[in-house]
Amino acid sequence: MLQDHLISAAHLSRDDIEAVLDHAAAVDADPDLVRGRHDGRVLALCFFEPSTRTKMSFESAMKRLGGETVDMGAVDSSSVKKGESLADTVRVIEGYADAIVLRHPSEGSAKLASEFVDVPLVNAGDGAGQHPSQTLLDLYTIRENAGLDDLTIGIMGDLKYGRTVHSLAHALTNFDARQHFISPESLRLPRSVRYDLHEAGAQVREHTDIEDVLSELDVLYVTRIQRERFPEEREYREVAGEYRIDAETLEAAPDDLTVMHPLPRVDEIAPDVDETTHAKYFEQAHNGVPVRMALLDILLGGDR
Amino acid sequence: MLQDHLISAAHLSRDDIEAVLDHAAAVDADPDLVRGRHDGRVLALCFFEPSTRTKMSFESAMKRLGGETVDMGAVDSSSVKKGESLADTVRVIEGYADAIVLRHPSEGSAKLASEFVDVPLVNAGDGAGQHPSQTLLDLYTIRENAGLDDLTIGIMGDLKYGRTVHSLAHALTNFDARQHFISPESLRLPRSVRYDLHEAGAQVREHTDIEDVLSELDVLYVTRIQRERFPEEREYREVAGEYRIDAETLEAAPDDLTVMHPLPRVDEIAPDVDETTHAKYFEQAHNGVPVRMALLDILLGGDR
Amino acid sequence: MLQDHLISAAHLSRDDIEAVLDHAAAVDADPDLVRGRHDGRVLALCFFEPSTRTKMSFESAMKRLGGETVDMGAVDSSSVKKGESLADTVRVIEGYADAIVLRHPSEGSAKLASEFVDVPLVNAGDGAGQHPSQTLLDLYTIRENAGLDDLTIGIMGDLKYGRTVHSLAHALTNFDARQHFISPESLRLPRSVRYDLHEAGAQVREHTDIEDVLSELDVLYVTRIQRERFPEEREYREVAGEYRIDAETLEAAPDDLTVMHPLPRVDEIAPDVDETTHAKYFEQAHNGVPVRMALLDILLGGDR
Repeated sequence: MLQDHLISAAHLSRDDIEAVLDHAAAVDADPDLVRGRHDGRVLALCFFEPSTRTKMSFESAMKRLGGETVDMGAVDSSSVKKGESLADTVRVIEGYADAIVLRHPSEGSAKLASEFVDVPLVNAGDGAGQHPSQTLLDLYTIRENAGLDDLTIGIMGDLKYGRTVHSLAHALTNFDARQHFISPESLRLPRSVRYDLHEAGAQVREHTDIEDVLSELDVLYVTRIQRERFPEEREYREVAGEYRIDAETLEAAPDDLTVMHPLPRVDEIAPDVDETTHAKYFEQAHNGVPVRMALLDILLGGDR
Repeated sequence: MLQDHLISAAHLSRDDIEAVLDHAAAVDADPDLVRGRHDGRVLALCFFEPSTRTKMSFESAMKRLGGETVDMGAVDSSSVKKGESLADTVRVIEGYADAIVLRHPSEGSAKLASEFVDVPLVNAGDGAGQHPSQTLLDLYTIRENAGLDDLTIGIMGDLKYGRTVHSLAHALTNFDARQHFISPESLRLPRSVRYDLHEAGAQVREHTDIEDVLSELDVLYVTRIQRERFPEEREYREVAGEYRIDAETLEAAPDDLTVMHPLPRVDEIAPDVDETTHAKYFEQAHNGVPVRMALLDILLGGDR
Repeated sequence: MLQDHLISAAHLSRDDIEAVLDHAAAVDADPDLVRGRHDGRVLALCFFEPSTRTKMSFESAMKRLGGETVDMGAVDSSSVKKGESLADTVRVIEGYADAIVLRHPSEGSAKLASEFVDVPLVNAGDGAGQHPSQTLLDLYTIRENAGLDDLTIGIMGDLKYGRTVHSLAHALTNFDARQHFISPESLRLPRSVRYDLHEAGAQVREHTDIEDVLSELDVLYVTRIQRERFPEEREYREVAGEYRIDAETLEAAPDDLTVMHPLPRVDEIAPDVDETTHAKYFEQAHNGVPVRMALLDILLGGDR
């Protein structure tokens, strides 16, 4: 699998995942291990939708491997605007690079694009589809802080639209994890995702109140509830207020609870949580670099 | 000539062209030849007009030479907006870089700018003017696939406005090439270009129908017919339909015909051509990298 | 001070300043001194406001040190748009980089941001606040051309709103410099700045006419008078015309007068000055590279 493209976390076996996480841990412990390894190699960044974090993180990862990046730039200044197909765009760009990172608004676009290129292609988000490197860094952060075996995790917030959440939940079925989903009724995990998790033999429970389960958790993964999901501001504020974590909320949590968030946060986690030992969301963001270094190093091939 | 700036393909002698193409072929065959050669050197990208391909291709070329790039960014966020002259802009930027690539909407701007700087400046398109590195990669692709001597080439599509076409036609007068121009009457090669080609002793014929000449061609160079050249949509569609190539069209072509296109294409070449052995337009785009590596390496000076 | 962040030129002692300028001079004389020194290290460029010069100059400096940059991109495509706080943004980004350069429209933002990160942070302009690396390159240019001791400098143009001017004037109080301020009454140095300079023991005089003092100057520092400061176009043009320098003006100046300008200029210095030996404003812009190389090298720590 990891010899060619990375399109979906769903394609990753437990062995694939552990290979990336182990290599990321080795790189994190000793960055010199891979320094200069990809000197003179080039990663193309093709972002058909804006992204700060994912792009900077891949860019930093490639550069810390000794490599370089070339950026397609904003879509409105590109050939796409002249009516070029995605297939043509990636076929041209593969000539400029040794690997491609693609973000695109259409679900399935990464799979489609990968069929036209010979260099490794990483899906960095395809609409409501997948964003597998985010899942890998989430798993890495969980493993470093709580371990991936005998894990009890709570996933809270917008579970209906959150691509990150669906992908993580799927990936966790590879491990011995009990998953608790906490959300308002209107933002519940979609039926299709629940079905898939059930099929995969996942241990899943749903809640509307974080208090019901907080004391059992090893990890609490919070996501943003977006204003635009609600017809009325009043309704949004009510819901957002109930699914907000602060230092006081966490007094009922185990001492070693790890709190995660894919960021950016707006109001879901109060700033007073930042000072607690629970807060691991900045570390989680930072983990994007070693995880993507490991991923790129594997995809590009260690030898030259 | 190639010791200082590259402003126009018209200034290039056959020896200059062959020096670049020979070096590009050597680099293409063995990229290690120049790897790390320009470590710590910086190329400034000054694009006053958007460009995906040309910019990424120069960027990739410089980085594969071990060098780096700095990008002026979009004009609307630059000092240009505060009323700065082009001469001042390039005089400041030459302090940040060892060479400059300039694209600017005004014809003659590259020549003007080059008079104010001491570092090598490459014209990457000046309005209706020149884009010499495109011409070099076109020549390289022709040479690799059909040879530049005893060549019969057809150039088809918008011959009136196509900067790429004019520049290529001029450059081909350095070689033993028969040039066939195929276009609707309304998009015929301008009189001034025909005059120049005649003066240079070129062997030129014009056609309105590709069938008249297809069986004789070694290379068919297709260009995009732009909607905005026609007052009415209906007229555009009629013309575009007649100057469109598909696999069926090519059945009448010699087996070893090379089909080229500067890309992006919209509808001029049907996707079913991609699968044929004629299709060389992606290879042509990819050739931008070794050709620009060779060009930059020569302009920057191999030694330090 | 220079072991951690660079927020304000006002925090720099004479020793700090001289350490940077001495190192810049050494780097300028022999760039190989630091070539490859920061291989594999990454500088994050966080520009919440557009900037061509400052960004390209930092980028070039980091790359000439062997390092790399990652760019946050335009604010409208970033997490900031989703409502993220500045503190969160820089806390995430420090995970991608070894140092941060920040430009932000709010005065005090650089100081605030620096309190949330462990990597060195350089203020590249915070609204009406500070832009210390500009001050350092100004001081470097003065020192190289006229020396910083027994200096007579004239600072002319918009002295009311010019952040660059206030910062330079403050910094010059560390040296034996006589400062002459030349401006229309309406664009006079603000009372608070005059007070601070007085407190610092500066030798200051104000003028409305450059002729009064031109013959005494070692350095004339010209700044742009912005159209938008004047309610009426007519008034702007009158004032701008009076505070404009051309080759004829400079006939009354000492032969070795150094003319500086932070650029971009519009009309304040006529193009005929460019040909004179007085013109040092392009050299001044170019000095941004060695000065920022020295600064980054000190902040990142020479050893690894």
